[in-house]
Amino acid sequence: MAKAAGEETEELDHRVKRVKCDSENNGGETLLCGFQTSSVLSDSAREKTIFIHGKLDDQDAVVILEKTPIREDTLTDLFTGSRLKLEMRNDIYSTYWLQAPPHLNEIKTTVVCPATEKHVKKYQRQESFLVEESGTDYESITLPYIQRQSFSVQWVYNILEKKAEAERITYEDPDPEVGFVLLPDFKWDQKQVNDLYLIAIVHKRNIRSLRDLTSEHIPLLQNIFQRGKEAILKNFNLPASKLRVYLHYQPSYYHLHVHFTKLGYEAPGCGVERAHLLADVIQNLQSDPKYYKTRTLYFPLRADDGLLGKFKEAGRL
Amino acid sequence: MAKAAGEETEELDHRVKRVKCDSENNGGETLLCGFQTSSVLSDSAREKTIFIHGKLDDQDAVVILEKTPIREDTLTDLFTGSRLKLEMRNDIYSTYWLQAPPHLNEIKTTVVCPATEKHVKKYQRQESFLVEESGTDYESITLPYIQRQSFSVQWVYNILEKKAEAERITYEDPDPEVGFVLLPDFKWDQKQVNDLYLIAIVHKRNIRSLRDLTSEHIPLLQNIFQRGKEAILKNFNLPASKLRVYLHYQPSYYHLHVHFTKLGYEAPGCGVERAHLLADVIQNLQSDPKYYKTRTLYFPLRADDGLLGKFKEAGRL
Repeated sequence: MAKAAGEETEELDHRVKRVKCDSENNGGETLLCGFQTSSVLSDSAREKTIFIHGKLDDQDAVVILEKTPIREDTLTDLFTGSRLKLEMRNDIYSTYWLQAPPHLNEIKTTVVCPATEKHVKKYQRQESFLVEESGTDYESITLPYIQRQSFSVQWVYNILEKKAEAERITYEDPDPEVGFVLLPDFKWDQKQVNDLYLIAIVHKRNIRSLRDLTSEHIPLLQNIFQRGKEAILKNFNLPASKLRVYLHYQPSYYHLHVHFTKLGYEAPGCGVERAHLLADVIQNLQSDPKYYKTRTLYFPLRADDGLLGKFKEAGRL
Repeated sequence: MAKAAGEETEELDHRVKRVKCDSENNGGETLLCGFQTSSVLSDSAREKTIFIHGKLDDQDAVVILEKTPIREDTLTDLFTGSRLKLEMRNDIYSTYWLQAPPHLNEIKTTVVCPATEKHVKKYQRQESFLVEESGTDYESITLPYIQRQSFSVQWVYNILEKKAEAERITYEDPDPEVGFVLLPDFKWDQKQVNDLYLIAIVHKRNIRSLRDLTSEHIPLLQNIFQRGKEAILKNFNLPASKLRVYLHYQPSYYHLHVHFTKLGYEAPGCGVERAHLLADVIQNLQSDPKYYKTRTLYFPLRADDGLLGKFKEAGRL
């Protein structure tokens, strides 16, 4: 197909820009020399990461830096090859700044170039707001929003029907009423049990979230709790006293699922503002069958979440 | 007073050892060259820290390494002075290992030498276990343990009576029934609002924890919730929608207090296994005055916690 002159020029431009971005000189060794920082999108002093927006040869780029974990197998080299600068000494305690050989103290660097506005937004620190949702708010604001969005859970059905990820399943109870599939969360690489993270997805459909649960679901919840813990003990040798078992509200998808994470591992989303212990949920439904229909629930929403806009429109924030 | 010969020798030994530990050569520049690692006590890939037990000139020592946060004001020097090794390239994404000049990429080093067994224990990763405590367990195991330990809360009374930390108080409601003192937690340096952390300590004494709360305390809890949020808005310009307000169970001291932390800041102890949202506590007491007397509560205990031993003795773990 013939192309308009303008299209060709644009394509050429794009190729030229890509070549500049790649900066093949010495395998990219000095790629970042020409990087012009515009702003820090976010950073974490605790995790030693920084996300930077800037220009690389006139193109928008995002650069992500993360210091590498300290490896036990490099300690001897690190101690013999480094220099210490004394900072403070007090009795048996002393602190130093250690300057290590560069090859033993690398920084993992990710470059996105050219970066679109979407990339920049993705890496920008997003403020969260705590939302207060009464039972009535759920009916009038949240439920209509969920229904209008009609978030697809086809990928969940694919798992339940063994059309996808069948080889990843850790355990299954096929019962249509109280059954579920247990499989590792994508965040867990399964290489160590320290950050164990599994998800139980119920076979029963149309239970969107905590809000849909009543006392009739207690057998389902107890079954997940009991058999999930047993399967994790059997497969990963981790007893129930080492597990944090909970639901999210709001969940990230509206098909009922339960999170199993290792106690002591600070899994994302295990904070009190979003997580609900399964054991508490069962107890609450036992004492009040409509607990989650009537109760005011609190949860954080990111500034760019559509549901937050709905709460604002309704004057609830 | 005369000393036995053995004592003098011991003292001399100690002095010699201390000098060796200090290793004054070049201001300690090569202090760690002779460090012999015995074991890694704990480490965190997420936080880039490692705690190491070993020998320094035949003495027990603990060395703590923590990579430094990436500073915005060093980025230009970092980019121009570093070398990149390409790891992977895929479309607009590429990853590298960045080797930085040592002075721009230091490691904070703390040396404890000579270290006692207590130091080693302190830095050793402590496993936690989730404990299930029914209302009866509380009465028969936990309450007697708390009473026997008679943990001193004199330091809390000093704050309430303005005998200590008076200048740190952010807000006070002096009412003896529903009043409280609000002040910054020690973990918060008050230099930025990002990790805001305040504690409200009630004036009323003898409310040990969540377990002592009944519906008669609702006015106290509502007062803390309302006035605490107002004081934080006024003093730190942070609205209620940015706050996580909660109690701990088990608390670290048995005089009722409430935590106010910034939403989005992963404060230690804000996980669902230990934190209870104040708003939930109020709702639960409104619907069941004895909710926290009768309910089974779940919480983590460290392996070296005396209370854990009591639960084990009682066959409850």
